[in-house]
Amino acid sequence: MSSDPLVIFTPSGKRGHFPVGTPILTAARQLGVDLDSVCGGRGICSKCQITPSYGEFPKHGVTVHDTALSEWNAVEERYDQKRGLPKGRRLGCQATVQGDVVIDVPPESQVHKQVVRKRAEVREITLDPTVHLTYVEVVEPDMHKPSGDLERLLQALRVATGENNIELDTHLLRPLQPILRKGNWTVTAAIHRGRDGATPRVIALWPGYFDGPVYGLAVDLGSTTIAGHLCNLSTGEVVASSGLMNPQIRFGEDLMSRVSYAMMNKGGDHEMTGAVRAGLNQLVTDIASEAGADKSQILDAVFVMNPVMHHLFLGIDPFELGQAPFALATSDALSLNATDIGLDIAPGTRAYILPCIAGHVGADAAGVALSEAPDRSEDLVLVVDVGTNAEILLGDRNGVQACSSPTGPAFEGAQISAGQRAAPGAIERVEIDPVTKEPRFRVIGVDLWSDEDGFDAAIGATGVTGICGSGIIEVIAEMRMAGIVDASGLIGSAEQTGTSRCFADGRTHSYRLWDGDADHGPITITNGDIRAIQMAKAALYSGARLLMDKRGVDTVDRVVLAGAFGAHISAKHAMVLGMIPDCPLDKVTSAGNAAGTGARIALLNRAARTQIETLVRKIEKVETAVEPRFQEHFVNASAMPNAVEPYPVLRSVLTLPEPSFNTGGSGEAAGGGRRRRRRG
Amino acid sequence: MSSDPLVIFTPSGKRGHFPVGTPILTAARQLGVDLDSVCGGRGICSKCQITPSYGEFPKHGVTVHDTALSEWNAVEERYDQKRGLPKGRRLGCQATVQGDVVIDVPPESQVHKQVVRKRAEVREITLDPTVHLTYVEVVEPDMHKPSGDLERLLQALRVATGENNIELDTHLLRPLQPILRKGNWTVTAAIHRGRDGATPRVIALWPGYFDGPVYGLAVDLGSTTIAGHLCNLSTGEVVASSGLMNPQIRFGEDLMSRVSYAMMNKGGDHEMTGAVRAGLNQLVTDIASEAGADKSQILDAVFVMNPVMHHLFLGIDPFELGQAPFALATSDALSLNATDIGLDIAPGTRAYILPCIAGHVGADAAGVALSEAPDRSEDLVLVVDVGTNAEILLGDRNGVQACSSPTGPAFEGAQISAGQRAAPGAIERVEIDPVTKEPRFRVIGVDLWSDEDGFDAAIGATGVTGICGSGIIEVIAEMRMAGIVDASGLIGSAEQTGTSRCFADGRTHSYRLWDGDADHGPITITNGDIRAIQMAKAALYSGARLLMDKRGVDTVDRVVLAGAFGAHISAKHAMVLGMIPDCPLDKVTSAGNAAGTGARIALLNRAARTQIETLVRKIEKVETAVEPRFQEHFVNASAMPNAVEPYPVLRSVLTLPEPSFNTGGSGEAAGGGRRRRRRG
Repeated sequence: MSSDPLVIFTPSGKRGHFPVGTPILTAARQLGVDLDSVCGGRGICSKCQITPSYGEFPKHGVTVHDTALSEWNAVEERYDQKRGLPKGRRLGCQATVQGDVVIDVPPESQVHKQVVRKRAEVREITLDPTVHLTYVEVVEPDMHKPSGDLERLLQALRVATGENNIELDTHLLRPLQPILRKGNWTVTAAIHRGRDGATPRVIALWPGYFDGPVYGLAVDLGSTTIAGHLCNLSTGEVVASSGLMNPQIRFGEDLMSRVSYAMMNKGGDHEMTGAVRAGLNQLVTDIASEAGADKSQILDAVFVMNPVMHHLFLGIDPFELGQAPFALATSDALSLNATDIGLDIAPGTRAYILPCIAGHVGADAAGVALSEAPDRSEDLVLVVDVGTNAEILLGDRNGVQACSSPTGPAFEGAQISAGQRAAPGAIERVEIDPVTKEPRFRVIGVDLWSDEDGFDAAIGATGVTGICGSGIIEVIAEMRMAGIVDASGLIGSAEQTGTSRCFADGRTHSYRLWDGDADHGPITITNGDIRAIQMAKAALYSGARLLMDKRGVDTVDRVVLAGAFGAHISAKHAMVLGMIPDCPLDKVTSAGNAAGTGARIALLNRAARTQIETLVRKIEKVETAVEPRFQEHFVNASAMPNAVEPYPVLRSVLTLPEPSFNTGGSGEAAGGGRRRRRRG
Repeated sequence: MSSDPLVIFTPSGKRGHFPVGTPILTAARQLGVDLDSVCGGRGICSKCQITPSYGEFPKHGVTVHDTALSEWNAVEERYDQKRGLPKGRRLGCQATVQGDVVIDVPPESQVHKQVVRKRAEVREITLDPTVHLTYVEVVEPDMHKPSGDLERLLQALRVATGENNIELDTHLLRPLQPILRKGNWTVTAAIHRGRDGATPRVIALWPGYFDGPVYGLAVDLGSTTIAGHLCNLSTGEVVASSGLMNPQIRFGEDLMSRVSYAMMNKGGDHEMTGAVRAGLNQLVTDIASEAGADKSQILDAVFVMNPVMHHLFLGIDPFELGQAPFALATSDALSLNATDIGLDIAPGTRAYILPCIAGHVGADAAGVALSEAPDRSEDLVLVVDVGTNAEILLGDRNGVQACSSPTGPAFEGAQISAGQRAAPGAIERVEIDPVTKEPRFRVIGVDLWSDEDGFDAAIGATGVTGICGSGIIEVIAEMRMAGIVDASGLIGSAEQTGTSRCFADGRTHSYRLWDGDADHGPITITNGDIRAIQMAKAALYSGARLLMDKRGVDTVDRVVLAGAFGAHISAKHAMVLGMIPDCPLDKVTSAGNAAGTGARIALLNRAARTQIETLVRKIEKVETAVEPRFQEHFVNASAMPNAVEPYPVLRSVLTLPEPSFNTGGSGEAAGGGRRRRRRG
């Protein structure tokens, strides 16, 4: 056994014997203990702070004496005076081993910290970004041994990192010489490491020691909204979030109309590429300003988006996505120079775009898959990202299937007579008394229900202006539960339903949800509104059902609703409508903007990129447009909840009345014609 | 022993047994025989033409029967009708082995052809450019197995090339889909392969089968002249050459004045970068037009240049090169995107820049080293690239030394009273009768000597306008041989020399070379002219002598004069002046634009890039500015040929009179003050 002192690190438990005088940082590196250091042990960065523990440690079988570490030295003294070293802390690069010692590495000194995610059910992200800072001292030029400043910088970086093939981004050739001289031959380099085996690349340089922060941008580039998070790459923390409308909206609300625009207008795709890039740069400006960050400190960017946005963003004509076989120009993940895609962040930054799953299932769905990890689920999970187009994933450890389904914009309030975007004044929650058939509701921006005292005063500012997507789901589901609408989607007459809120409205009936006031007219639910929602939800369900067919199952264990809209849907109401398959209500959860979360994971963890690339290759892709059973599922799913699915779990917790308001007239009940495929 | 037929390839001599029915191309590939194919054996490209030989081959021990190959087939028939197949030729991918056979691979069917160089003493270049064309058929998109068009293209290329990590240049993402469809899912890709281990990259695409030609550009970016050769990358042939004045000249004739311009004028280096890039693009336009080539078919570019041009071309401020320690921003070879350096050729092209040897010894000197290969010389060779600045290499198989020396522009006719650039009307050759001291001369553009009948009429168009660089060398050397000027550089009086062509001219004397005519005044050589040449040649010689000191030798085995100027210098006259060390006159050869040749070698042969990078690292660099003995050598070398070197070999073939015209006056003979360092 070695007579050298024993050094034990916590929490890792790694241990080893080291000669007296070995710096703790050196011991940690040799044992593979996760202890940070930017300056390579020069006592500058203070990233390697550790906490020695003294006394008896029966568990470890050691006694740590006061003299176990070298004495507090001048470097630590200076650092403490300048910036303050927390009590009990030492600098790992300065304190040396003198006797057996137990060393705790506090979380903030670990390179691979855990990043806290808000939801309890998802795993933590281990921080391991693609960009790291490294401080080095560079040998000064010597005319007797002439070599370029660059070559001496790279030599210093090779020694500091142990990597032999580091390159410098071309744009740094010019500033290199002034930076080295300004830093008096010391420099901090931001090194980008892409996939394993890729060449590490210096993408930014600062004179002397630079402490950061450096940032990364995670962007969900939606057809309607561009949402971005700015993350501190040292802590993983989101320091600012911002969103803006996709400026492409002026070329068409939904994606198919943008594809048409490109087809009908020469150079139209270029216009849209310019618009979305300009929007993105506006977002960068906004988010950097919110965080008080300099755009030149944004050194990584990760993007998720649907295939049409993907192509338009990259400057590719989306023409082929508008027709079978929906061929993507490229489906694999991409790592591109930020400057090549017109991104106004640090030049040299490599932008990473998650892989697309299929011609209709984009990098946004890959983001959802990365965030929700159906491939790691023990039970069978259905993940639905509800938007103008729904992306659907079904899977568990044994495999994952994916498809998209053209739900259309009804869930977002479009095509609904009183529909509107989620904004103050919009009805978002509805309850209908099954006996009296009287409704009550809440509007966005007001906490009171409409039958509570003070509601009229509270809505004074906004009024009641319409119904948003989650509100329309609730009101129709409530109407179904109250027997106002039948399974086929017909609203009953006042006579059939026993409430005067139902009234003849053309050839069908409508339900008056709100009587209106001096400023705003009444809000009614028409039979057309119900048709629109039936179409949308039937498309969504049919996609999910197709995946279940592929898998040979009739039920799923749980359902995850992703997307901003998914976050506001009530599980019960969605299930009453038959949007999602039957399953225990407490097994339906919301994941929020899972696509954006996926982008953030890929931003903060290099390995996650490989992971999603591998998963996407393995996912079984299902093209709903050509699946013969889609039409059959669609017709069945037009009924609420479904013409053939019994929904036993749902019916065990509530009773659905089963009136029939079909008077044998127009036969325009369930299903109807299949709409033109629509994307969004 | 195998009972399969024996296939013997000539000229390689490779042989092997192959089953009946094996295509000759397949046999060649398995044996590693150098047989070209772009289309991968589809009978499209015809690159794999071979010539079967029939009859008895005692040397190989085989008899080849008429039936040794399969019969002429429909593909060959079609190709022959369309384009004509030379008599006796077959397509290697169509003809299959039926019996023992001897197959000759004609030179044009070899991938690695030898490129003929004009000079006999240099080795051949083996053609192996970084860019090759590959034709593939791409699997069509299938919505049931969705993958991007790019991914299917890369898969086809992986199969065709056996390389697993091929990438597509970003700029091709957009045109990819239309190209694949236009070619009906066949495409020809230009693949660039950089250094070993670098990722192969598709840099250009054509629909269907594309036969080329594709081109590469080799450029010598001089301070005065930009010279380019356009080479066909399939044949190695130079298809066009062009040159133009470096537009940077308006910022300063010599390099130091350009460095000063950058220092004195904010943004001055940017202006000069813009100017040289614009000039280069003009050259590209000219040369492509001369060759009838499309700029988009220029798929490789190699550059050599001195360090200041190197930095200005790359957009780096040359400030540091203007002062000790003359630190280069980067010295290693560079491979850059052509678009990053503003080069208007095929986007996606990677431009290669040879490494710099030292702060004063640039990539142009590396080009000379690659072309003249002192490191492979059996005897000790001194290679001198004479320009405004001289780059000097000394070496053999045991090692190479390099330095530069500030010769100044005198060799180019500047600082000479009657000096002018080499152009029609300039005196380029001179002889002086040692007895009569009468001169005769030739001017550029006229074949007659000045004492021949018809000379006056022949010069009618241009007149005699001045003396160019090689002319000034000759006239001074002739004056020295005729005893008109003494070893210290003083011109004698009419009395001392016995010719009235010498006349008092201020405090010294001048020699009247030409009496002038009605249009042009007389041309005289002043003592100031001789001083200027003494300075220049002393600088050149001192550099060479320093390298000889480093090596511990007093003589060299041979001398190579590189550069356009070197091509016109007479070895004898240069040695009389003491520009170069003593050595047999037939051991002094001219290499022409060796720097440009080096660029062309690096363009045509990938391995040459590794070779010069390796050599440059091994070259011993000598910085003349700080070598204590430089000054001493300089003073000695101011004498003609030299104050201390005996020049025995030279004196064995001619007699140098040794008058002394120093009358004890001004003492302004040899040497004088060391001039300010000048670069060029």
